[in-house]
Amino acid sequence: MSASRPENVHQARLLRLLRDEGPRSRAELGDVVHLSRSKLAVELDRLAELGLVETAGLAASRGGRRSSVVRLAPGLRFVAFDIGATSIDVAVTNGELEVLGHVSEDCDVRQGATVVLDRALDLLGKLRDEGLLPSVHGTGIGVPGPVSFRDGMPVVPPIMPGWDRFPVRDAISQELGCPVRVDNDVNIMALGELHAGLASGVDDFLLVKIGTGIGCGIVAGGAIHRGVSGSAGDIGHIRVDEAGPMCACGNTGCLEAYFGGAALARDATAAARDGSSPQLALLLADRAELTARDVAEAAAAGDAVAVRLVREGGRNVGQVLAGLVSFFNPGLVIVAGGVAGLGHTLLAEIRGVVYRRSPPLATGNLPIVLSELAGQAGVIGAARLISDHVFTDA
Amino acid sequence: MSASRPENVHQARLLRLLRDEGPRSRAELGDVVHLSRSKLAVELDRLAELGLVETAGLAASRGGRRSSVVRLAPGLRFVAFDIGATSIDVAVTNGELEVLGHVSEDCDVRQGATVVLDRALDLLGKLRDEGLLPSVHGTGIGVPGPVSFRDGMPVVPPIMPGWDRFPVRDAISQELGCPVRVDNDVNIMALGELHAGLASGVDDFLLVKIGTGIGCGIVAGGAIHRGVSGSAGDIGHIRVDEAGPMCACGNTGCLEAYFGGAALARDATAAARDGSSPQLALLLADRAELTARDVAEAAAAGDAVAVRLVREGGRNVGQVLAGLVSFFNPGLVIVAGGVAGLGHTLLAEIRGVVYRRSPPLATGNLPIVLSELAGQAGVIGAARLISDHVFTDA
Repeated sequence: MSASRPENVHQARLLRLLRDEGPRSRAELGDVVHLSRSKLAVELDRLAELGLVETAGLAASRGGRRSSVVRLAPGLRFVAFDIGATSIDVAVTNGELEVLGHVSEDCDVRQGATVVLDRALDLLGKLRDEGLLPSVHGTGIGVPGPVSFRDGMPVVPPIMPGWDRFPVRDAISQELGCPVRVDNDVNIMALGELHAGLASGVDDFLLVKIGTGIGCGIVAGGAIHRGVSGSAGDIGHIRVDEAGPMCACGNTGCLEAYFGGAALARDATAAARDGSSPQLALLLADRAELTARDVAEAAAAGDAVAVRLVREGGRNVGQVLAGLVSFFNPGLVIVAGGVAGLGHTLLAEIRGVVYRRSPPLATGNLPIVLSELAGQAGVIGAARLISDHVFTDA
Repeated sequence: MSASRPENVHQARLLRLLRDEGPRSRAELGDVVHLSRSKLAVELDRLAELGLVETAGLAASRGGRRSSVVRLAPGLRFVAFDIGATSIDVAVTNGELEVLGHVSEDCDVRQGATVVLDRALDLLGKLRDEGLLPSVHGTGIGVPGPVSFRDGMPVVPPIMPGWDRFPVRDAISQELGCPVRVDNDVNIMALGELHAGLASGVDDFLLVKIGTGIGCGIVAGGAIHRGVSGSAGDIGHIRVDEAGPMCACGNTGCLEAYFGGAALARDATAAARDGSSPQLALLLADRAELTARDVAEAAAAGDAVAVRLVREGGRNVGQVLAGLVSFFNPGLVIVAGGVAGLGHTLLAEIRGVVYRRSPPLATGNLPIVLSELAGQAGVIGAARLISDHVFTDA
């Protein structure tokens, strides 16, 4: 099916307002969009004809005649695919981007585009079988690598063999018969935080994702800053110390060579093997390799080596972030991703370095916080991405 | 006098178009702004009544009736003050931001706001005496420190004692009877490059100014990114190496502790005194202290120590810039400021580090160049800043 789109800028504004603020009376909408009563009625009638909004009873009186309440059509549906290095999340939202259904499973992105996207469509089928998908107005997709936003495809993604220039947008658009937009996973998380998280209403902020690797979503002036080739926020290979460890990229001393899920697994396994951490050795006896979660467990149990790994990692993230805060002067920094599960010890170290190293004017009023959206930032952000497109006049 | 302003968004667009593109026929203007012939005539007539545009003869025929040429009123004047750490530049431009007169003199910003601004007004008086200032439609001002753009005043500027929260905008607005906008010196240089320099038409770029200190102007999506407290681009205190020299800010290893005019003067003087550089010793014999210009002279004469100072400086700038390129993914980097006079040796080192350390996707198509506007970027940018304000509907 082909979904309807607003016909002009007034209709687009009304749709975004109803998406972000929920149902509103005609009087309230008129106050915000500065349209005359009659002009507003014309636009709302047209949106109703297009199946995008509906009238839902009368609002409380504001003194005069009671005004009817308008809301987005309850049948509006957006689909969100959040494809990570080792997982797929698929969700369905309504027009207000409330998550109606969300399924997730482990999946190795290195299996290539065809296998992974087929798997995502299978998972979507489950949600459809539950009756959650009467229609599809658009699909937003995040992938763990750089994306040409204009072309809707990954470009030379380092950890996604088989995905380079695969036409993700066009393939899924053809499959689902709806508009599709593709972006990298960190950008969609930032959009999720902007829509429903701690960054709601913050125009300039950074979302630092610490997962297997480390990336940054940049919101400038209320919109994602993607850079000229879509690689903005690729901070995992910023230098911490030239004399540091060798990185998979061929340089030395990159942030990811020091920290992130992969580096942490490496260091924890070494500490388990060389006997310096009895706690980590105990955990390693049970499984083939250690993960960030094991380090969190050992640290919580008071293991000194695990605590040191978390602290050193936080300091290195903090060093890089201090430079970015000096440069960008954000109003908020959100730390998210699997390794952010290391929690407040990690956060305390990051804060310590940033508050000490960045200019006082940049940090005087700068919260550095952990995400509160847990695993939902990505899918909410993917839905936000496509809804921004669908709720724009064609 | 109080200057006229456009009354609606169409008039504002027409004025900016005539500013950026120069005189245009009515037919050409109609093509660009998508207004009907009659609607366009109404808006242009109104702009002529406001004294902002005038008709100037007939354009070449495009096949039908000859269309008249429209241009900005030739009497439009913008004033630009570019206040540096050790200099003042004052210029007058026409509506197209062509510099009609430009005077410059040495001036220590540490004399405080009243003394320095009085001096700028005196210099403006010279240009007025030459008949360059029949009217003033607005004044743009750059100062060498962080600025609250909203309040039009410097905020805790480290090298500007006596300027903290001085109401620069309101004081000059009252003095000259025109709208005034204030920004930091690096941002106005970036605007100058956007308007008339190598960044013309580039939406995302960085302007790195290497003067006494080091700062960065950031253009994102065609507009200056100032950050939430106006300190964006304050890159002089980004860490190069924790074990590096002490910086005036109290931290160690900041970029400015390694390089910039002040660090270069320090290192050159030391090399002259300890006998390691005969060439620099010769120059020091003539004067009280050495400057970046002396290092450039010694390097050009083949002095090994001077060449080494320039190269090491370039490498350190390159290390910081490589991180910013990874993060921001700009389409262009322009290097400017007094120390950029060190020229291609400096540039080669910066390029070497950035091209090696930033991700290939970010550098594949990234020019890193020296400014070609010489000393005019600041005043053109200041004029651009105020013209953007004046050419906006009120």
